[in-house]
Amino acid sequence: MSGRLTVVGLGPGSPRQMTPEAAAAVAEADILFGYAPYLARLPERTGQERRASDNREEIARAAAALEAAVAGAKVAMVSGGDPGVFAMAAAVCEAIEHGPEQWRALDVQIVPGVTAMLAVAARCGAPLGHDFCAISLSDNLKPWELVEKRLALAAEAGFVIALYNPISRARPWQLGRAFERLRAVLAGDIPVVFGRAAGREDERIALTTLATADPAQADMATCIIIGTAQTRIVAREGLPPIVYAPRSAPAAQ
Amino acid sequence: MSGRLTVVGLGPGSPRQMTPEAAAAVAEADILFGYAPYLARLPERTGQERRASDNREEIARAAAALEAAVAGAKVAMVSGGDPGVFAMAAAVCEAIEHGPEQWRALDVQIVPGVTAMLAVAARCGAPLGHDFCAISLSDNLKPWELVEKRLALAAEAGFVIALYNPISRARPWQLGRAFERLRAVLAGDIPVVFGRAAGREDERIALTTLATADPAQADMATCIIIGTAQTRIVAREGLPPIVYAPRSAPAAQ
Repeated sequence: MSGRLTVVGLGPGSPRQMTPEAAAAVAEADILFGYAPYLARLPERTGQERRASDNREEIARAAAALEAAVAGAKVAMVSGGDPGVFAMAAAVCEAIEHGPEQWRALDVQIVPGVTAMLAVAARCGAPLGHDFCAISLSDNLKPWELVEKRLALAAEAGFVIALYNPISRARPWQLGRAFERLRAVLAGDIPVVFGRAAGREDERIALTTLATADPAQADMATCIIIGTAQTRIVAREGLPPIVYAPRSAPAAQ
Repeated sequence: MSGRLTVVGLGPGSPRQMTPEAAAAVAEADILFGYAPYLARLPERTGQERRASDNREEIARAAAALEAAVAGAKVAMVSGGDPGVFAMAAAVCEAIEHGPEQWRALDVQIVPGVTAMLAVAARCGAPLGHDFCAISLSDNLKPWELVEKRLALAAEAGFVIALYNPISRARPWQLGRAFERLRAVLAGDIPVVFGRAAGREDERIALTTLATADPAQADMATCIIIGTAQTRIVAREGLPPIVYAPRSAPAAQ
């Protein structure tokens, strides 16, 4: 088989935050697969085919890409951010496990990228500077009770919490419920950052608190970072405040 | 003030995994600050000064970089991986908070990078494909009891766990203790990945289980990913196995 599949992380959106490895994988591909808005970030190339799909068709998209690679094509499957963080890499692995033997013989590579929480954190300081967790708020593939359990345990552990997939038309209430769950166990003045399109022209970074965090500030492309009681805010005259997690943690917690 | 400070994530090590934004920040700097092995990755440039330091002198290094920027230099402080994940960004923010007023007036930018857990995950499939956490095993700045508490809560939450700073000459027993703590609550057959120098020529990725994980496999540059009961391993003939976290989680957990 001469075909291969590369699952590529395009980074947060700006071409300046896409690695050379990712750019090369995209440039070398005969066929690009991916969610339409991610494909739209990439320049059209003569002779390169593109197959855009809906965001919800992950396994079907993975299967189509694997079939094209088995048929001999150099295929790149593109993801925003990092493909291994709530994106296409797991769907491709799942398809390979349950698919025909040929798919397990394929040359499959994953190209990492800068995931959203890192890009959002960089724009406001170092809010992930200590132990942290990343939770998807989507309950399409896991029970909502598990999400709430994880939020509660993460708060108890003192993790900074990064929320992915916070809200969508089909999942309108989950983010509000998550804030409620956290307000029950964390102080209202804990810093919360809403970050969207970090590093892009339409970037929006907003700093608020857990008490006043409003789900309406988020859309499906927003990454939300919820601090801890240790998170610091440094006010600066004429400049945006700096938000960071101190490197040291107190003994009693 | 014409000086500025950019805290730059160089990525996991290969220049192919360093973003153009990071490469530009390094190229434009008058002075590079950083831990010596990170500076050693970068080509020497005429007219560019470099000030290497020990890995343990984070606040002193941050202060020196801020002073150089206040004095008018374009300063880049380099970190491996992402500067916001157990690296220099938090130390710089902390120095700014507690330093002179001039430091708060400075142009300070953070340039994100591909952090180690993403690079290691990419080399073995998608082990972070579901909810996960990142914990530093260093107890230099936090009590060891807090590390154990976080490990136990992370296991209870069903998070995949990425361990940073697992072991060093000054901290020889912590990783063994962490494995013991996790063996008390997690099944012995849970997959564990030891990843070092992902994407570089001297890359070492090893797949084992929690029961047989040996701290001697790690050094201070290793990132360890501990799966969950859901983590899957896909055997492939003549190719390394694929390790991934399924996108879906069962109801009862």
